[in-house]
Amino acid sequence: MRALFLEGSRLTLRPDYPEPALAAGESLVRVTLAGICGTDLELVRGYMGYRGVPGHEFVGVVSQSSDPALVGQRVAGEINASCGRCDFCRADLGRHCPERTVLGILGRDGAFADYLTLPDRNLTPLPESIPDEVAVFIEPIAAACEIFEQVALAPDEKILVLGDGRLGAIVASVLHSHSYTPVVGGHHPEKLAALARLGLKVEAEEKLRPAFDCVVDCTGDPAGFARAVALVRPRGRIILKSTAATNPALNLAPVVINELSIIGSRCGRFGPAVAALEGGKIDPRPLISARYPLDDAIAAFSAARDPLNFKILLQVS
Amino acid sequence: MRALFLEGSRLTLRPDYPEPALAAGESLVRVTLAGICGTDLELVRGYMGYRGVPGHEFVGVVSQSSDPALVGQRVAGEINASCGRCDFCRADLGRHCPERTVLGILGRDGAFADYLTLPDRNLTPLPESIPDEVAVFIEPIAAACEIFEQVALAPDEKILVLGDGRLGAIVASVLHSHSYTPVVGGHHPEKLAALARLGLKVEAEEKLRPAFDCVVDCTGDPAGFARAVALVRPRGRIILKSTAATNPALNLAPVVINELSIIGSRCGRFGPAVAALEGGKIDPRPLISARYPLDDAIAAFSAARDPLNFKILLQVS
Repeated sequence: MRALFLEGSRLTLRPDYPEPALAAGESLVRVTLAGICGTDLELVRGYMGYRGVPGHEFVGVVSQSSDPALVGQRVAGEINASCGRCDFCRADLGRHCPERTVLGILGRDGAFADYLTLPDRNLTPLPESIPDEVAVFIEPIAAACEIFEQVALAPDEKILVLGDGRLGAIVASVLHSHSYTPVVGGHHPEKLAALARLGLKVEAEEKLRPAFDCVVDCTGDPAGFARAVALVRPRGRIILKSTAATNPALNLAPVVINELSIIGSRCGRFGPAVAALEGGKIDPRPLISARYPLDDAIAAFSAARDPLNFKILLQVS
Repeated sequence: MRALFLEGSRLTLRPDYPEPALAAGESLVRVTLAGICGTDLELVRGYMGYRGVPGHEFVGVVSQSSDPALVGQRVAGEINASCGRCDFCRADLGRHCPERTVLGILGRDGAFADYLTLPDRNLTPLPESIPDEVAVFIEPIAAACEIFEQVALAPDEKILVLGDGRLGAIVASVLHSHSYTPVVGGHHPEKLAALARLGLKVEAEEKLRPAFDCVVDCTGDPAGFARAVALVRPRGRIILKSTAATNPALNLAPVVINELSIIGSRCGRFGPAVAALEGGKIDPRPLISARYPLDDAIAAFSAARDPLNFKILLQVS
């Protein structure tokens, strides 16, 4: 099968990559459409030291499964493949299972290929009301919804979403759809204008002034944290949504002095995301900047690195 | 008056430092006994760029005051002198007032001198049942009690206090007095043995194993944060109690991946600390390693830098 392969910081499109072997309790999924995420770009920069097929935002069709009812179903999939037996798994927190593999990120080939495998229990059959180009956003929208599972936001919480990229756009859209009025702060006037057209409140980064109750760092930039610290009020909260491959020198003294809370936030459950999309609370399609065939995946990654683009999709089949 | 003066990284004992001028609503306090804290040592290393008289843990006697009822009273004092009018002050969070000065740390000469001034409302008259050598611990005990105002700890929370220094000892003692069973992790066998004699659970740093529900970083060492991240469980909490003058390169990726919460924690209200000491729930006197006269303050700072010592006191009058 075709697959985009990452080794070191080199991506190559392999025409005859071996199809993934199907383990007990798993399904083989033919990928239809996949999304490039900031994490994928960081993987290429060395984050996680990942070697394999990247890609963890996808929609596809089950072609083989240990569960016959899944075969032929159009699905999205939770990316953490967990043991199902440990304390985290039993607490419905399989995404923290210490034995987990993570699709396209840790020990499991991902979605930028003709086929992928995931445990049957990770797959969510999709209703017809959610088309492929919406379904491909379920994973990042679930990650945005994770905020609500971790933090109780006040109805009038003054929220700053730092970063006008794909992640910032999705997080702000999800907050907006939940009746919050976040400000998106960013460096790119064109993108801020596009987000304003979606009904979001936007502000040029250099015009942002303290003090926000809550800052969601979606910059994907190691410098984002210090900026968030500068913009949050004493006793405020910073939610870290993006990871970066580099480790900057960080001054934690203001975190202590201002008694800030920093909350790391990663993947979320798919249920709330599917519900939000099915009910039409969020329509992420305006965030699609371009769609490339899998054969042009290298060019698609270049486009994803262009700060003027939001989401770049890969059409696989 | 006599005062220990810090300029750059140089401490000098000045025999004829000017007595502080008394502003409206403030009291002049003759210092009896003061404690040297890790923050004082960091100030000497350049933290906060402070120039002036350090010292913020003290007990003293009011010699002049705009409130006649205070004159002659033996007092401890909250160290944040706030405006009394802003949103933080109105919410009883004057320790976050943006206009504040902080005794011996920011814009206000501190306690390593014959006299200091603080607003009348910062002073807490002390009951006879709390002797001076106990009262001098009110400030750090209040800072330890601050944890309970910020975080709801489960009754069976698995807590690690990282650092066997004065701050770790106080935080662990306060947690212990509140029916928790923290483990104190540290590098110094003699100090761990001393803490064990106080009834605390201790463990050599290199023997600590994940995963704690909550890690309180009391190391005062920029490397403490990374160690805390390594020892806390996914979705666990790290409470930062100590500040340091240097900024190490920090990897925030595990904070996101493991969805950790980092809570900065600084000064606390004096009420809970006075109540704990008055009721005999905590007796900090075993933590006193030595007492020096103010005239030997330079030697006292050397002793405070010795990792084998806990609390060093300065007898001022």
